[in-house]
Amino acid sequence: MKASDIGEFALIKRLMDRQDVPDPAIVRGVGDDCAVLDVGEGPYMLIAADMIVENIHFSLKWSSPEQIGSKLVECNVSDIVSMGGRPRYGIVSMALPKDTELGFLDKLYDGVYSACNRHGMFIIGGDTTHGSDIVLNLTIVGDVEKRLLRARDMAKEGDLICVTGRLGGSEGGLRLLLAGTKGDVGPHLDPRSRCAEEGRTIARYANAMIDISDGLGSELMHLCDESHVGAVIYKDKIPLSDPAIAAAGILSESACDYALYGGEDLELLFTVPEDNMEGLREAYEDFSIIGRILSSEEGVAIDENGERKAIGPGYDHFRR
Amino acid sequence: MKASDIGEFALIKRLMDRQDVPDPAIVRGVGDDCAVLDVGEGPYMLIAADMIVENIHFSLKWSSPEQIGSKLVECNVSDIVSMGGRPRYGIVSMALPKDTELGFLDKLYDGVYSACNRHGMFIIGGDTTHGSDIVLNLTIVGDVEKRLLRARDMAKEGDLICVTGRLGGSEGGLRLLLAGTKGDVGPHLDPRSRCAEEGRTIARYANAMIDISDGLGSELMHLCDESHVGAVIYKDKIPLSDPAIAAAGILSESACDYALYGGEDLELLFTVPEDNMEGLREAYEDFSIIGRILSSEEGVAIDENGERKAIGPGYDHFRR
Repeated sequence: MKASDIGEFALIKRLMDRQDVPDPAIVRGVGDDCAVLDVGEGPYMLIAADMIVENIHFSLKWSSPEQIGSKLVECNVSDIVSMGGRPRYGIVSMALPKDTELGFLDKLYDGVYSACNRHGMFIIGGDTTHGSDIVLNLTIVGDVEKRLLRARDMAKEGDLICVTGRLGGSEGGLRLLLAGTKGDVGPHLDPRSRCAEEGRTIARYANAMIDISDGLGSELMHLCDESHVGAVIYKDKIPLSDPAIAAAGILSESACDYALYGGEDLELLFTVPEDNMEGLREAYEDFSIIGRILSSEEGVAIDENGERKAIGPGYDHFRR
Repeated sequence: MKASDIGEFALIKRLMDRQDVPDPAIVRGVGDDCAVLDVGEGPYMLIAADMIVENIHFSLKWSSPEQIGSKLVECNVSDIVSMGGRPRYGIVSMALPKDTELGFLDKLYDGVYSACNRHGMFIIGGDTTHGSDIVLNLTIVGDVEKRLLRARDMAKEGDLICVTGRLGGSEGGLRLLLAGTKGDVGPHLDPRSRCAEEGRTIARYANAMIDISDGLGSELMHLCDESHVGAVIYKDKIPLSDPAIAAAGILSESACDYALYGGEDLELLFTVPEDNMEGLREAYEDFSIIGRILSSEEGVAIDENGERKAIGPGYDHFRR
């Protein structure tokens, strides 16, 4: 049996969840956006890692080195922000082809540092080696006050389901690039995480939170699986970005499918008890209510003009 | 100019040491075996990362998947141990070819977990994606009491230079494998880090410490550069392992060159004030005194029958 047959999430669970962990400092381990460590009196420490590979996650055909460096950091920051945390430190490992130009690397790091500066984080170490393709790994360390920690398994029946910003732009941009068609490809080449202050403001009112790196549909399914709940979202409530709508128009595709099944929008999906909604609205504006958490028996569905359909699996790095 | 022209260490320094870091929690950043974070009242936190690439750091021609997994962990543990620390947690990122067999991955992780169990550490997260070659990154988190922290820049003039165990076996094994010749290749395929208790016992008596992952000569030069000192080591005092001597005999090469310029022996190189030597000898036995720290003006030399020669650069992952 091939590893690719079982999918990324099952694979991680199978491989990495094999130790009995009697260590009380591990508050959360494999399966969340970040591992959570209780290192003492202060805040929890959050740690996550993300690996990106040339010609899988980025292509030098259309990405500048600055964009690649920035994207590496932004995708990781989003994992920290989605748990209510602040990004603090990064450790970068790189495998590079032997003929890599120093000028290329300098620009890649311009992108890394510009994203670090946007998010107030520092690079504290790394490893460099060579390989046939460019492979970049960022391990990110953040922290979060214990009371602000949010995760994908905290949704409660009755919660309103919300997303920040507008979705589908990254997938729309990728589709345009793959088709060789002109259009706004910025959301794919230069994705931006929500900043820590936004995540933390939301965390004060939300029960569960996850970032949308693999499509709204897929992330909602993770959230519901881990919270042991069901959900319904309303198709006409899903906020679609202008670039997604434009790309879908050009390519005669569905911007809503980009949002549901595309990757790397880096928006936040979160659930809020109805009683907290007024407070959240006063504190934060850039979000939409798209549905409601149900009991687990009701499954995870999308409502289109009153008709409910089950939501299919989203983007899976390992299958695509 | 190619990145490979300036070498791994200069490259890391150039790329990763570009931010002003006003964060007082960063005790040590880029340039040490581990970054050191002051996260509160308790011990320092140590973080390091190591990336290994198929056909560069390991070959499926001669390594079993268990050996690859074990080596990934052992190389990282050695970085923590060399700073006086205890390894605690690991985060594994993998890029895998699409046709990777699940059975292969299960065995790779058998190796990861057997090494984790040897060293009392836990895997707390990871990322899985695909790529054309196998690329594995382990980020390791450890801790060390503030008074036990040791590093490569702490050597003092007059210190005795010591190494644990016996050297050269890993390079000897690699040479045998490359030549297609039979012999003891275990030290190359299945390297083992010194355990935390050994590093911590040594740390109580030593000034500076570094692990030998890139050859004794190269590590001694790093230690002297960072400590702003010189050194002399005596060729006839370098402890050579039996497999190194055997491999050198078979191949008509120099086991001492394996020790000086080979990679991945994972022994500890450390410097001890003469007054502490008696105490160290009572607490720990498995080491040899090979030379003495001098003033920086005297350079870094090897003494062979009373004749001193400068030590050349060692293994450099990026140039080889």
